[in-house]
Amino acid sequence: MPSDVVNLRDKLDRFSGLWSPRVVAEMNDYQFKLAKIRGEFVWHDHRDTDEVFLVIAGEMSIEFRDGVTHLSEGEMCVVPRGTEHKPYAENECHVLLVEPRGVVNTGEAGGALQAENDVWV
Amino acid sequence: MPSDVVNLRDKLDRFSGLWSPRVVAEMNDYQFKLAKIRGEFVWHDHRDTDEVFLVIAGEMSIEFRDGVTHLSEGEMCVVPRGTEHKPYAENECHVLLVEPRGVVNTGEAGGALQAENDVWV
Repeated sequence: MPSDVVNLRDKLDRFSGLWSPRVVAEMNDYQFKLAKIRGEFVWHDHRDTDEVFLVIAGEMSIEFRDGVTHLSEGEMCVVPRGTEHKPYAENECHVLLVEPRGVVNTGEAGGALQAENDVWV
Repeated sequence: MPSDVVNLRDKLDRFSGLWSPRVVAEMNDYQFKLAKIRGEFVWHDHRDTDEVFLVIAGEMSIEFRDGVTHLSEGEMCVVPRGTEHKPYAENECHVLLVEPRGVVNTGEAGGALQAENDVWV
């Protein structure tokens, strides 16, 4: 059976909530998730896993305790496990996240921006 | 330390070989690899892992024994483990592959198109 095609822009058109990642594909025990972000997230880390951010549209920053990484469309970075970080976007930015199934967006931090997990679009 | 930024188009400018994936990032035991493809690859499968194709520029097809999946820029698919497939691109196409470290491009098939593994760009 041919494999399902995931069109990232079509998927982005199908939700509007900010800071609420939607799963678009699974590979082994990893998930590819789209997120729309704007404003400041919370400081958090993921103790057991690295996390990939790949910017699909717009610009974002990831603040670390000792510096900032800026990402534009077509740029990606890997946040190492256990590294505190705080994503930020001045204007709405669309991001593809790659991480193991079950990772919570706020890590250990919780709070108002903690999103429901494993929501597909 | 802020995380390294990987600009996919900059990385693509730094190599020209076809069917020869270059690693651009590692997340846990997974690798993100860029590949330039044109023409027909070989039938093969990866017995132990799924494999993600995400088209960065151009168009490609993945032939399966019972159908074909077409992918354009901004589209991705997951080839399930153990599923025979044959990538194809009429014109040069640039793809981001995601798969565990150590996966060989030709799977069990080998042959002239088998690329050296774990080559970074």
